[in-house]
Amino acid sequence: MAEPSSKAEYVVGVDFGGTKILAGVFNNSLECIGTVKVSTKAQRGTDAVIERITRCVHDAIDETDLTMKQVAGVGIGAPGAVDGEAGQVIFAPNLEGWKDVPLKKDLEKNLGVPVFVENDGNIAVLGVHVAELKSKPRNVIGIFVGTGIGGGLILNGELYSGFGHAAGEIGHMVIDVDGPKCGCGNKGCFEALASRTAIFQQIKAGVKEGQKTILTELLGDELEDLRSGDLRKAIKRGDKFVDRIVENAAMHVGIATANLINILNPEIVVLGGGVIEALADEMMSVILKTAKDRAMPGTMKGVEIIASKLGDNAGITGGAVLARRETK
Amino acid sequence: MAEPSSKAEYVVGVDFGGTKILAGVFNNSLECIGTVKVSTKAQRGTDAVIERITRCVHDAIDETDLTMKQVAGVGIGAPGAVDGEAGQVIFAPNLEGWKDVPLKKDLEKNLGVPVFVENDGNIAVLGVHVAELKSKPRNVIGIFVGTGIGGGLILNGELYSGFGHAAGEIGHMVIDVDGPKCGCGNKGCFEALASRTAIFQQIKAGVKEGQKTILTELLGDELEDLRSGDLRKAIKRGDKFVDRIVENAAMHVGIATANLINILNPEIVVLGGGVIEALADEMMSVILKTAKDRAMPGTMKGVEIIASKLGDNAGITGGAVLARRETK
Repeated sequence: MAEPSSKAEYVVGVDFGGTKILAGVFNNSLECIGTVKVSTKAQRGTDAVIERITRCVHDAIDETDLTMKQVAGVGIGAPGAVDGEAGQVIFAPNLEGWKDVPLKKDLEKNLGVPVFVENDGNIAVLGVHVAELKSKPRNVIGIFVGTGIGGGLILNGELYSGFGHAAGEIGHMVIDVDGPKCGCGNKGCFEALASRTAIFQQIKAGVKEGQKTILTELLGDELEDLRSGDLRKAIKRGDKFVDRIVENAAMHVGIATANLINILNPEIVVLGGGVIEALADEMMSVILKTAKDRAMPGTMKGVEIIASKLGDNAGITGGAVLARRETK
Repeated sequence: MAEPSSKAEYVVGVDFGGTKILAGVFNNSLECIGTVKVSTKAQRGTDAVIERITRCVHDAIDETDLTMKQVAGVGIGAPGAVDGEAGQVIFAPNLEGWKDVPLKKDLEKNLGVPVFVENDGNIAVLGVHVAELKSKPRNVIGIFVGTGIGGGLILNGELYSGFGHAAGEIGHMVIDVDGPKCGCGNKGCFEALASRTAIFQQIKAGVKEGQKTILTELLGDELEDLRSGDLRKAIKRGDKFVDRIVENAAMHVGIATANLINILNPEIVVLGGGVIEALADEMMSVILKTAKDRAMPGTMKGVEIIASKLGDNAGITGGAVLARRETK
């Protein structure tokens, strides 16, 4: 393993996803002092993506006027099944060609500092647990709603990754047995009902059928460059069509939340990801009400459901926590 | 706590459910040497039910020509949220009036031996883990399909009961958002689609609508005393209507299995309970195929799905394991 410099006081957290790579530099107080984002370009192949992660980390260090000598380590969250001990991405359904990729080894060679790898949902819930949840609950479920829907589990005080490091795929829990087709090949998955992708598809399908929405005034009939923040603007301006679709997604998040509470009875469910960050005001009350209505009587007792304040930075924060913990 | 006699070499396992109480006497080799079953009669109130459990244990001891002096302890699985350390049933949605009941204390007073209490799903999965799974997997999900559907989780090698001892309520995972009404007040729960109660309701509704079935020849038009075993007989005699309903239930068990594999990625999923015991030949192939089709690519790798050989004795076996473990 590469050895950190004795003067190293910073760590870098990386959130590596199917569409973007985000790197954040953190100081000793776990404050983020700068970030850089690049697109993943997964279609260019495994090696090219690893080069892009390397460049993203270097750029973030440069952005914060530091050098790699001042970095103790890098923690990175990767999608799919990740073997943290071996530092390998075992498989990632959303990243073509990612099978048994030695991400830790390759990045350590490129960066010259120790690198630690975990599943992206797990790392995000770790970030929330350490940086945000003061009571340090022993059982936490993280639900991250973005392009897809990921999850992270802390059970009995420890990150839980299961037998083949593939636990936490809550986005592929079926909640509507005859529901819409999901990218994974299944039908009615939580992700196919409430992710950004699902919400945008429902909006675009509605517009094609002649539904009126402020969004076409803002972005044109093709709704190019539609973002979660646009939905918030539309709802604030009284767009009933968008409101209904977002409320329906929130209802499905509430049902998934109730399911996970019934199965795992955690102290706290933390919601994060880009969709929740942009639409917390619009979605959280519906999520809470649905979860309370749908959970078993008694199971909800004392259970909190909150939106993470870290928003889309949960992943890089968790990466920083992991790097700090492992290099201490 | 009551002290066991030094000559005590037997333990008693009790499966205490909403409709029946089953007590089994086990020797030092964890062999069941005799059982007694009585109905619960929950409507008679908490005290009456505790008297019935006491009587059931005494009768089982008498049945096996033993005395209580030869019993080291009693392990009991109870429905709902159970605090094993305090020995209390915190709440049991299917048992009216069961709220903060000191079951351990009351039974120890009646029986004069140490009593240990756990959730029924947890105790059943413990029984399967110790008596049946030779490889001692660290992560096991038990799915018990009977009158209702219960679950038990062994995660990272330990029974998992969650924050408020209410984990494992897998029967109330919604898998069909607009599905049939469930006894818990929710819609589309796993239990409302695949439990014995759900299967019988579907059959009775079909018969009312004029569906032809061998079952009415066997049991009359009202289908009185219908049992899971009758379904097996009907299917073996070529009853397409019953076959279709049982296959549909098995499909829903398969979907729930896939959901739990996606969320928790265990080594093994064990199916048990009266419905699986009676209909394993008819259901298991559909359950396996559906789970494989519906689980995330990669997540199923190395994961086993089996029907427990303990059948309806999983609960009393787990009770015996608990009693043996705690009195050693």
